[in-house]
Amino acid sequence: MPEPDIEKLVDTDSELDPNEGIEKQENTYGISDEDIDEIIDALHHGYEEAVVEKISTLNAADGADLISKIEEEDRESLLSEHGVAFTAEMFAELQEDIRKSVLENMSPHQIAEIIKDLDSDDALDLIINLDEEFQTQIMKKLSSKMRLALEEGLSFPEDSAGRLMQREFVAVPQFWTVGKTIDYLREGSKTLPDEFFDIFIVSPNHHVVGEIPLNKLIRSKRTDKLDTLAINDAHHIPAMMDQEEVAQIFRRENLTSAPVVDENDRLIGVITIDDIVDVIDEEAQEDLLKLAGVDSGDIYGAAFKTSYSRFRWLFINLLTAILASLVIGMFEATIEQVVAVAILMPIVASMGGNAGTQALTVAVRSLSMKAVSRSNALRIIWKETIVGILNGVVFAIIMGIFTALWFTSPLLGSVIATAMIINLIIAGLFGAGIPIVLDHMGSDPAVSSTVILTTVTDIVGFFVFLGLAGLVLL
Amino acid sequence: MPEPDIEKLVDTDSELDPNEGIEKQENTYGISDEDIDEIIDALHHGYEEAVVEKISTLNAADGADLISKIEEEDRESLLSEHGVAFTAEMFAELQEDIRKSVLENMSPHQIAEIIKDLDSDDALDLIINLDEEFQTQIMKKLSSKMRLALEEGLSFPEDSAGRLMQREFVAVPQFWTVGKTIDYLREGSKTLPDEFFDIFIVSPNHHVVGEIPLNKLIRSKRTDKLDTLAINDAHHIPAMMDQEEVAQIFRRENLTSAPVVDENDRLIGVITIDDIVDVIDEEAQEDLLKLAGVDSGDIYGAAFKTSYSRFRWLFINLLTAILASLVIGMFEATIEQVVAVAILMPIVASMGGNAGTQALTVAVRSLSMKAVSRSNALRIIWKETIVGILNGVVFAIIMGIFTALWFTSPLLGSVIATAMIINLIIAGLFGAGIPIVLDHMGSDPAVSSTVILTTVTDIVGFFVFLGLAGLVLL
Repeated sequence: MPEPDIEKLVDTDSELDPNEGIEKQENTYGISDEDIDEIIDALHHGYEEAVVEKISTLNAADGADLISKIEEEDRESLLSEHGVAFTAEMFAELQEDIRKSVLENMSPHQIAEIIKDLDSDDALDLIINLDEEFQTQIMKKLSSKMRLALEEGLSFPEDSAGRLMQREFVAVPQFWTVGKTIDYLREGSKTLPDEFFDIFIVSPNHHVVGEIPLNKLIRSKRTDKLDTLAINDAHHIPAMMDQEEVAQIFRRENLTSAPVVDENDRLIGVITIDDIVDVIDEEAQEDLLKLAGVDSGDIYGAAFKTSYSRFRWLFINLLTAILASLVIGMFEATIEQVVAVAILMPIVASMGGNAGTQALTVAVRSLSMKAVSRSNALRIIWKETIVGILNGVVFAIIMGIFTALWFTSPLLGSVIATAMIINLIIAGLFGAGIPIVLDHMGSDPAVSSTVILTTVTDIVGFFVFLGLAGLVLL
Repeated sequence: MPEPDIEKLVDTDSELDPNEGIEKQENTYGISDEDIDEIIDALHHGYEEAVVEKISTLNAADGADLISKIEEEDRESLLSEHGVAFTAEMFAELQEDIRKSVLENMSPHQIAEIIKDLDSDDALDLIINLDEEFQTQIMKKLSSKMRLALEEGLSFPEDSAGRLMQREFVAVPQFWTVGKTIDYLREGSKTLPDEFFDIFIVSPNHHVVGEIPLNKLIRSKRTDKLDTLAINDAHHIPAMMDQEEVAQIFRRENLTSAPVVDENDRLIGVITIDDIVDVIDEEAQEDLLKLAGVDSGDIYGAAFKTSYSRFRWLFINLLTAILASLVIGMFEATIEQVVAVAILMPIVASMGGNAGTQALTVAVRSLSMKAVSRSNALRIIWKETIVGILNGVVFAIIMGIFTALWFTSPLLGSVIATAMIINLIIAGLFGAGIPIVLDHMGSDPAVSSTVILTTVTDIVGFFVFLGLAGLVLL
């Protein structure tokens, strides 16, 4: 363990209480419900100073939490009366939906004041979802440098590296020494970005020729030349690259920052790991929500807006459910004569839907982790089909025996057993196949896979079971 | 933009081609299918040198990809013939399941050789899932220092900060100056961790009294004392803290590393952002998979093992489907007389299931993002109930009119309309309520919410629709 022998180096001047840390350990993160209640209480009773003081003790994430978690009317009065108590970073930490509604209640001047304290990527994030006219009004209040940076950022497509990057970075020429670089960092202290992890080495025409992590720079001799240290395979991220792909590169290479280049391969910005953590969260959330037909705005959106955004998905599901009912309707005569089939038919459809969803979820996850290649796609589909056969046989036996006993009809038992096997095989085949084919066709597999799958398993389930029952029992 | 005026500092000695970067930009990340085919081809034809040379050009993630994506028999012969061509980092990057099966085919000596090139957290990761006896055999071949580190790591519970941390970190006493610290880093160059982002300031008895990001250290004057720079609110992570909570702290505070402390608040390790990215991926994957009743091993597991792991979930679903069938069975008389209800009943149940899943997914996601507090839990459930009422009314109208026309029975139309409203309200209420109540009771909401919900929406859907039909139509 590379640490100095501290026991021997006791600093007798220390004023620090050795137990200080232990108390800190007891704090959990985040603003507590009690703190929220206290602030709202002070707000309701008009204790202005108490409100402001309490807010000033919060860090950025806690301040954002406070704004998010309180009732809408409290939020409005808190922000209109004590808006200045909140830091720019608190607004930057807000969830998209809440941030939008909060900013729409503010003046362009107020928002410009917030923006000037932020790095260019956070500033862009703040205004990105506002109306174009409102954006223009805010831009007018900004310094020309910030305005230019924002306009350039807006020119990149959504979810691109260009939108994600910040324009503040550290780049030095390749012939500098370690000592000269450190001196430059010390002198330029105020104009540098708040945080940085790597230094980019650039050629005279702004091409990135390498990058040096700070921990490598700091360990090198002052006389070392940078080009002897530079890690040459810096990962150039084209500004147009999709953010999901950027996240995958960071994940694979364990990067903390990477240079972003324009179409001429000139350095124009940097993406840091904290942006990537947000992207990973966002993409994971998207997959989860899309599979259920939910919009990400639904988490914080109002009930009416949420109902509207979910309507479309439910309507498509209604159409597929009606389609399944039409299939059932084809076998009206069978149902009239053997009511038992009406009682049992949802079991076949439901088992197919559930088994298919298992296969589908695994396939969607593998696709978003980029673990599916041309060479293993067929193998994945084949494996899920085998799983369908294995579980199909097991559940055919269980359900066949159960049905034979329940309705004292071995014939009905063998009908449901056969339908179960067929539907679970179809479930495995289509559960893995649908997302892989959609992805291959360039569609997002998380969006429509579920609805296609359940349509297939419902229709096959009802058709095979009722059809066989009609053939065998009538 | 804080960069030196590079145009004026042209380095005429530069040997670098300014276009070099552009070619790199064309490479996408990851090993291509063509490269995989080439290596397997060389393997089959016995071109040993070509195989080794090709592997040596791969980075850690690509090497792991190669092992993961090829057929099992190719994997076995590749590793037995050319195992030494793969670096320790390639094994560290492998997915859990594949890594386990690969290591089980190797000797304790071979694995010990891999481990000695790794940091303690990666080493622990490598052996964690092996049999205890096999672990002991491997431990015997390790240096006593590494063995001790691994044994200590194994003593922490799964998914705790103690398992996640590495034991290699940089800690210096608080009375040192910036200059002395930099000199220490330069001298100790070889014993320091490969990468680090922050320096921890410790008191004589190993308590963390602060941390300094490298970019702050490097910008400070050599004569500055560390305790004037130290950021005092370093986030002490107790070794027993759950990794999900650690990830939440990193995410909230945009950290790149954090000190891990034992129960006496003494510094024992460090967690870095790359570990956290893995945790975030893992937790997001768990939520997604658990909601569908799938084990994370299912992605790479063999078909037979996968069938077995999915059986339990499907069996529980079978029981709930049978329960729903029993409910249908209660209304045999109604179905016998009005076959139309058998045709329509899956629509009511399916709409309830889908609407409920939407509410449920949003609630599960909010819970894992720690966005649910005591103060807003009831509000979330209430909002979903309102959404259920709104969409319930809309779909009641659509389905009521459609049914009245299809079966030329306005009465049947009003029965299905009423059942639709009731089931969608129940879906919203239970979809949001079940995960929140489970979480409150200390259960994982992602595991059992789905099955409880669909049981509720199926039973309510069938019962209300068939019951009403019996009352109104008979």
